[in-house]
Amino acid sequence: MPAQDLEVAEIDNALLEGVLAGQRRALAKTITLLESTRADHRLRARALLNALLPHSGRAVRVGMSGVPGVGKSTFIEALGLFLIGKGHRVAVLAVDPSSSLNGGSILGDKTRMEKLACEDAAFIRPSPSGGTLGGVASRTREAMLVLEAAGFDIVIVETVGVGQSETAVAGMSDAFVLMQLPNAGDELQAIKKGIVELADLIVINKEDLDPDAAMRARAQMGSALSLLRGHGAEVPILGLSALRAEGVEAFWMALEGLIAVRREKGEFEARRRQQALAWMWALVQEGLQLRFQASEPVRLALPEVLAAVEGGKLPASVAAVRLLEISR
Amino acid sequence: MPAQDLEVAEIDNALLEGVLAGQRRALAKTITLLESTRADHRLRARALLNALLPHSGRAVRVGMSGVPGVGKSTFIEALGLFLIGKGHRVAVLAVDPSSSLNGGSILGDKTRMEKLACEDAAFIRPSPSGGTLGGVASRTREAMLVLEAAGFDIVIVETVGVGQSETAVAGMSDAFVLMQLPNAGDELQAIKKGIVELADLIVINKEDLDPDAAMRARAQMGSALSLLRGHGAEVPILGLSALRAEGVEAFWMALEGLIAVRREKGEFEARRRQQALAWMWALVQEGLQLRFQASEPVRLALPEVLAAVEGGKLPASVAAVRLLEISR
Repeated sequence: MPAQDLEVAEIDNALLEGVLAGQRRALAKTITLLESTRADHRLRARALLNALLPHSGRAVRVGMSGVPGVGKSTFIEALGLFLIGKGHRVAVLAVDPSSSLNGGSILGDKTRMEKLACEDAAFIRPSPSGGTLGGVASRTREAMLVLEAAGFDIVIVETVGVGQSETAVAGMSDAFVLMQLPNAGDELQAIKKGIVELADLIVINKEDLDPDAAMRARAQMGSALSLLRGHGAEVPILGLSALRAEGVEAFWMALEGLIAVRREKGEFEARRRQQALAWMWALVQEGLQLRFQASEPVRLALPEVLAAVEGGKLPASVAAVRLLEISR
Repeated sequence: MPAQDLEVAEIDNALLEGVLAGQRRALAKTITLLESTRADHRLRARALLNALLPHSGRAVRVGMSGVPGVGKSTFIEALGLFLIGKGHRVAVLAVDPSSSLNGGSILGDKTRMEKLACEDAAFIRPSPSGGTLGGVASRTREAMLVLEAAGFDIVIVETVGVGQSETAVAGMSDAFVLMQLPNAGDELQAIKKGIVELADLIVINKEDLDPDAAMRARAQMGSALSLLRGHGAEVPILGLSALRAEGVEAFWMALEGLIAVRREKGEFEARRRQQALAWMWALVQEGLQLRFQASEPVRLALPEVLAAVEGGKLPASVAAVRLLEISR
């Protein structure tokens, strides 16, 4: 299927050129277009995205996860300012599928990342609100491509770890960072949620408050990791203080080192290819489900079928076959 | 949707009556019919299942998970013999989606559970082989209903924990048991795989080999659980020796106690209703995916689309929309 087949909508050349020139207004407008659920907007967004794709992909994509209060924003601000000081252009995005529920959104709070937000070389965008995790993450992934096309060479995607959002963010980043507090049991929570499996780098924040606790946390996480992953697959564990901006350079060096090794081994590109495919399949699955639920015969039959299954009058397997048949 | 609408195939009355009378031949034949992938067999199986459903549901369903070598078979044999001694009829099933890959199957080894297999009041069936996890688990779930209709009042479903098989087995059992060895790090592996979240009861086997290690393992698991789940939600941790059949009665008392409490609170029936619904949705999702993959336009377009997405020439989101459109 050649890409040009898809351009059923005209490409908005003013927006396209604006994005490629790195204009903030064009960027914001494009991302808003991507987030729109209107069918004509979706068509225009798809056409635009398709035209931007060849210009994307040149950034380092950093995923960052941690529970609320761990200090992600403080750290991202410190890291962003450090990277801008080194001549980089830094975009910060977020995936927070809960933002439609609580009305707020991570990164939505204007008082956060105040200094970084004032920088010309920074672009901060809160999580798209509403919709499924797949939808929210999809909009973020598309925004990332747009920002890359606009010349941002480092994209940081933040998530608070609601449901499966870590998996989604890890699936769009070149390196996934897990931020922890030096609390007992924190490593167990991360192991439980399967985040440790995704992490390329683990950071223990607030080292300054209690250096001993931070050291213990690092040791505990280290032994947990060696038990879980065995020898060989080493995950760096770094302590730092986001508030004092201590450890930021060491963090970036570790991350750059990790990416350099992956590039050398060809793993960097392989991971990106695999991510794009996995992402496509996840969206296909979600799309199939949404279409099924929207099917008129299914919607009509569903209440009775659900009651019969719940009441033990219809085997689940028979009900599934029946619903699949009428959904055609 | 009335259940009778589904009976497009004639019900095999000889089989139906044979199953209800608890005849082993009829049972084996019915389960083989359920496991068949032939379309006419599937239709007959569905009709039969539908007729058997009102007679099912009266057993206690016990899920049991543990890594290979933990002693599950030894324990299930000891438990089965103990239960038969108390007048119960015990069926043992398995979910092992890997059985098609390695040619073998858990419970397939004839030398295992030799004594239990000789009992009239026991029925042992290896894992259905081949197919997806959903398919394998679905066949097992249906076999369970058949065995219940045949008067088996305790059904034990074993899994070795390949991929998501624990979730599938926990989703068809009234109580899910995790069997562990007294090894350092074992609790971390279980936490990592999310099994601890599913477990209603944790058993540390081979207590006789090293009582101190077993005690340490119980203490470690206990503190890990309290960190993960907080106070209140207590999960019993029992030590036992499957080989010596020690601790079997204590295990069963704990399990019966747990189920009695749930029945009293109304949680037992609520869990079953919720399980049936979740199972139906899982099968619907799998069915949608299989149908999508079998769609002719999708199969024709897929190689080019995959190459374009992998090569960074087509955004994953655009590719997904396109594939969904042509799959209609």
